[in-house]
Amino acid sequence: MSKPLVGIIMGSQSDLKIMKEAAEFLEEMKIPFELTVVSAHRTPKRMVDYASTAADRGLKVIVAGAGGAAHLPGMVASLTTLPVIGVPIKSSNSIDGWDSVLSILQMPSGVPVATVALNGSKNAGILAAQIISVADKAVTKRLSQYKLSLQKKVEESFKEIESKGWRRSSE
Amino acid sequence: MSKPLVGIIMGSQSDLKIMKEAAEFLEEMKIPFELTVVSAHRTPKRMVDYASTAADRGLKVIVAGAGGAAHLPGMVASLTTLPVIGVPIKSSNSIDGWDSVLSILQMPSGVPVATVALNGSKNAGILAAQIISVADKAVTKRLSQYKLSLQKKVEESFKEIESKGWRRSSE
Amino acid sequence: MSKPLVGIIMGSQSDLKIMKEAAEFLEEMKIPFELTVVSAHRTPKRMVDYASTAADRGLKVIVAGAGGAAHLPGMVASLTTLPVIGVPIKSSNSIDGWDSVLSILQMPSGVPVATVALNGSKNAGILAAQIISVADKAVTKRLSQYKLSLQKKVEESFKEIESKGWRRSSE
Amino acid sequence: MSKPLVGIIMGSQSDLKIMKEAAEFLEEMKIPFELTVVSAHRTPKRMVDYASTAADRGLKVIVAGAGGAAHLPGMVASLTTLPVIGVPIKSSNSIDGWDSVLSILQMPSGVPVATVALNGSKNAGILAAQIISVADKAVTKRLSQYKLSLQKKVEESFKEIESKGWRRSSE
Amino acid sequence: MSKPLVGIIMGSQSDLKIMKEAAEFLEEMKIPFELTVVSAHRTPKRMVDYASTAADRGLKVIVAGAGGAAHLPGMVASLTTLPVIGVPIKSSNSIDGWDSVLSILQMPSGVPVATVALNGSKNAGILAAQIISVADKAVTKRLSQYKLSLQKKVEESFKEIESKGWRRSSE
Amino acid sequence: MSKPLVGIIMGSQSDLKIMKEAAEFLEEMKIPFELTVVSAHRTPKRMVDYASTAADRGLKVIVAGAGGAAHLPGMVASLTTLPVIGVPIKSSNSIDGWDSVLSILQMPSGVPVATVALNGSKNAGILAAQIISVADKAVTKRLSQYKLSLQKKVEESFKEIESKGWRRSSE
Amino acid sequence: MSKPLVGIIMGSQSDLKIMKEAAEFLEEMKIPFELTVVSAHRTPKRMVDYASTAADRGLKVIVAGAGGAAHLPGMVASLTTLPVIGVPIKSSNSIDGWDSVLSILQMPSGVPVATVALNGSKNAGILAAQIISVADKAVTKRLSQYKLSLQKKVEESFKEIESKGWRRSSE
Amino acid sequence: MSKPLVGIIMGSQSDLKIMKEAAEFLEEMKIPFELTVVSAHRTPKRMVDYASTAADRGLKVIVAGAGGAAHLPGMVASLTTLPVIGVPIKSSNSIDGWDSVLSILQMPSGVPVATVALNGSKNAGILAAQIISVADKAVTKRLSQYKLSLQKKVEESFKEIESKGWRRSSE
Repeated sequence: MSKPLVGIIMGSQSDLKIMKEAAEFLEEMKIPFELTVVSAHRTPKRMVDYASTAADRGLKVIVAGAGGAAHLPGMVASLTTLPVIGVPIKSSNSIDGWDSVLSILQMPSGVPVATVALNGSKNAGILAAQIISVADKAVTKRLSQYKLSLQKKVEESFKEIESKGWRRSSE
Repeated sequence: MSKPLVGIIMGSQSDLKIMKEAAEFLEEMKIPFELTVVSAHRTPKRMVDYASTAADRGLKVIVAGAGGAAHLPGMVASLTTLPVIGVPIKSSNSIDGWDSVLSILQMPSGVPVATVALNGSKNAGILAAQIISVADKAVTKRLSQYKLSLQKKVEESFKEIESKGWRRSSE
Repeated sequence: MSKPLVGIIMGSQSDLKIMKEAAEFLEEMKIPFELTVVSAHRTPKRMVDYASTAADRGLKVIVAGAGGAAHLPGMVASLTTLPVIGVPIKSSNSIDGWDSVLSILQMPSGVPVATVALNGSKNAGILAAQIISVADKAVTKRLSQYKLSLQKKVEESFKEIESKGWRRSSE
Repeated sequence: MSKPLVGIIMGSQSDLKIMKEAAEFLEEMKIPFELTVVSAHRTPKRMVDYASTAADRGLKVIVAGAGGAAHLPGMVASLTTLPVIGVPIKSSNSIDGWDSVLSILQMPSGVPVATVALNGSKNAGILAAQIISVADKAVTKRLSQYKLSLQKKVEESFKEIESKGWRRSSE
Repeated sequence: MSKPLVGIIMGSQSDLKIMKEAAEFLEEMKIPFELTVVSAHRTPKRMVDYASTAADRGLKVIVAGAGGAAHLPGMVASLTTLPVIGVPIKSSNSIDGWDSVLSILQMPSGVPVATVALNGSKNAGILAAQIISVADKAVTKRLSQYKLSLQKKVEESFKEIESKGWRRSSE
Repeated sequence: MSKPLVGIIMGSQSDLKIMKEAAEFLEEMKIPFELTVVSAHRTPKRMVDYASTAADRGLKVIVAGAGGAAHLPGMVASLTTLPVIGVPIKSSNSIDGWDSVLSILQMPSGVPVATVALNGSKNAGILAAQIISVADKAVTKRLSQYKLSLQKKVEESFKEIESKGWRRSSE
Repeated sequence: MSKPLVGIIMGSQSDLKIMKEAAEFLEEMKIPFELTVVSAHRTPKRMVDYASTAADRGLKVIVAGAGGAAHLPGMVASLTTLPVIGVPIKSSNSIDGWDSVLSILQMPSGVPVATVALNGSKNAGILAAQIISVADKAVTKRLSQYKLSLQKKVEESFKEIESKGWRRSSE
Repeated sequence: MSKPLVGIIMGSQSDLKIMKEAAEFLEEMKIPFELTVVSAHRTPKRMVDYASTAADRGLKVIVAGAGGAAHLPGMVASLTTLPVIGVPIKSSNSIDGWDSVLSILQMPSGVPVATVALNGSKNAGILAAQIISVADKAVTKRLSQYKLSLQKKVEESFKEIESKGWRRSSE
């Protein structure tokens, strides 16, 4: 695979079941990426290294997922000028996900994190691809095709309802 | 000014007092932009036109701000493959801002909005510049200088406290 | 069946298990309706078409259900002068339903959505029937009978408790 | 004025400063209405009378506003088959409006209240007009003109920004 | 059984599995009570009758449980000068119980409801007994014994931990 | 004044501006009461003394108001079998009043606190009077008159609106 | 075991499954502790005794866990000058844990409780050890080793991902 | 002043008006401290330095205050084994303080932050003193005197009420 353009990181290996959707989407868009575990709280120096060297290593976007008091996306954003996408993850002792949503979203003026929905890892992958597409028309094209496929799926739904009737379609 | 790369839109002229911070930051970064009012609920067809033609008109990023049941950022995102940054605005009858935050953040799988903090218009401008910088090293350089200026301001603070003492600095 | 008076739409086929309760109630009230999938985010142009032509096609009320950042009811309301009833749906990655409730309820001045309770699809059907009944006495009569049936069910409950005792009735 | 078609009621005279917006809109739409104070908690029997006789007195829609533990809209809905529109009002000791929103919105299956946004009295008036318009084409026409006026106001906004520039427009 | 002093009512028979705890406690305290289903929304006139005649029928306290937009306790309180205890019930489509808690607790000035914890039916029974005890020393005595039994249970716990050790006691 | 039947206590003198409404109502009902400051956190032993001796000193009900992490009502309830009414107070650093509401309302099984609305001190006074009235018909009579006065005030409101018109009444 | 330095207490034996994690961590750090059940609401006098004598018995820190309207940590803090660590526990009828979090965290000025995350009993154990370490270098050393072990575990994670690939690591 | 034992840090100079209360309390307790501005997001490397060297410089406790997505306390805790006390600050664009409370409180297992109430800077100072007192009996003595002064102030309150009466004391 060619040099990664997107770095996907997460606070713990247990987040991988959510975060892999970002990876799968980038694969579908043929965008090279790297994926690893970087913990803000358990490996703060590794995090500083990862974020500080990201741009020089050729990354264009970072996708960071974390749960609870989720500091990874914001701290990474403080250490790079690359756009950072944050994925709030609803972890086990979370207070309904509010903790990770607010810790990622409510960044102070000067250091933004592009936050997506709770557990919205796939959307983080799409957003990363959209950012890459700013300088890569081939990705734009693939994104358009993906958008078309979303529309197709809705069309299939309403055709199924038309042919089978709503009652049988709800079964 | 050269052709705009960023489109800044908002649901109502009253949002301009918040949204102008995004414009000011883009100016500082020397990134050409356009700014106008597009209402999802009062001018839905204008919104469809604006979003559908954005990429062809040369825009690379859209920044959309809205309050209450804030549908503008998400609807624009549904109509383009450009990255869309959403700014939740705490409007007058808002339920403490929760309504705009959740209507912008919690987009379904397939259609992301890069959400920033409540009233975080400046951060939306920074994020737009970071996205533009993916293909423009001059912007990266200016972003680095801006990041340095943030650091400088903190340094001035702690130097003031050092010289004047914490008690007088808090006055 | 005669020409539909009510249009029931939803953002995704998976919402049908909730939304069918509206359909079933309209059937019970002998009010002709149509039901299909229209996604604000995946098929925005279909949504514009659907809502713009609804009145001309003879619809009198639209019932729209959606989850998460639920833009369908509000966007449809922006495109028609028909009354629009919104059903917030608690979808899988919802933050406890607050996102869909607030995205539907907190519409700006000028574009109302008649919002019902979370997952309250049956109540949306009843409300649609109440609106139709404004110009149709036969429906009013059926609604009165339905109201009586609600009362009957309570009466059966307290009679069961009276005859069996509260302890056995709670088993 | 001819026989009222809409009844506007509220729990307390202090709600009138919010609720008058519904009245003003109905006036603009030339829909006859009545307006009075009916308290669920201080005049429960008056409330039962008001709601039970509403349909026979010729009302087609009831708009009910209340704050705090707001029981008026739901109780009225339990006593009539007319559509009832509920306006949550943010009263003085309210917990940020959540109490009135939830007491009005979360009605049990069988007894809907068409809930609008917090303090959304104008939208309640619009919704009432939309319901009346189901059987009155003249109202539909006026609603279309109103919708056009909303659009016009946005157009004025973006024209002002175009001519004066965003900076001066935000002053 | 002698003439009931406490009336236990609930909005639906499905609430009985929660509300029976109040009944069981009153039985333990030897306080005669009646228990039935009274729905504010489905049998509003039965509710008016029940509440209006409660004092004359000899009741001293009313315990009312309801879920969602829970209007029963507050409406009953509006129709009697007896103390009314409200039990918020977390029903199936509840927004995490907040709806019933706020609809019961946030009563306007003039019409209090003595609210207990979510699903706190047993505590409602205890509170009813405490109120009855104001005029009945025998009940006070039984309440003191009950209080002692609570303390005993804690003593057993810490004795078990002392003897078995914390590790084995947690198994 | 005769021997107090109700004890009104609060965590801090600053709560008096809220809590005096309970006192004023009891005065109106001619129910003797005592009022003082007892802090759970600053004078825990005074609190234990106050609550432990309350019944023996002849009190029949305790009204306790507190803000923030409001432990006073619940702790008093743990030390007496008298009914305890809790008044959540929205203090300065409160998180919108949620802290005091939840610390008072969500008592564990076995130790109820009769919770009233946020800042609902007057309702606490009414509830205390209702409890006293269980054994005092004179109080019942005064409560009925008070209830009538609430109704009267609503009647004045709607008569004012009838005579002056809604527009002038809202001024 | 030598004289306990840390007292671990909880409101109910059912909290032991959460609170034992604090005990296990202290064991690992070789810090002697005692563990028992003390209920603020069911054994208030035992609580007063426990807290008042804690310092004299040689305790240096108290860890107190409780759910719902969780008064134990704050009341203990009111009775001692020892640092008190509070563990909010998500109990069965809790409103999503908010009740215990806010009842423990929002202590008034003058009486702090060192609050940890919902169900964060292990972190309470670590915090207790950190406090003990202020006067015990051996504990500091063990804490450093524990911190290293956290880092190690992350390293194992990213090495597994490196060797097996992200897809297989997520299985 | 002798070598500082407590480090008080905050994300921005504007937090000083809140954070100075911690400083004032430590002064009162005669505990030497240092106070400066360290921003997690604007000076991440300064933060790493500050936290990594804190223990070696002789600090025993760190008090860290921050608002919004408040990462400073948790990140400092990740870099030291000293106890870290976190003060959530309600900053200007905060969502009612929930963001800073949850970003500080909900730390993952392994890295605790001792969180105090929103804006609870004085309590952070008290907690720091309590921790220092574990190894310094003079501080324990001063803390006991402070606790006594809290009690005194309550005593003055109830004496004022006793002498002046509740009505005049509330004026």
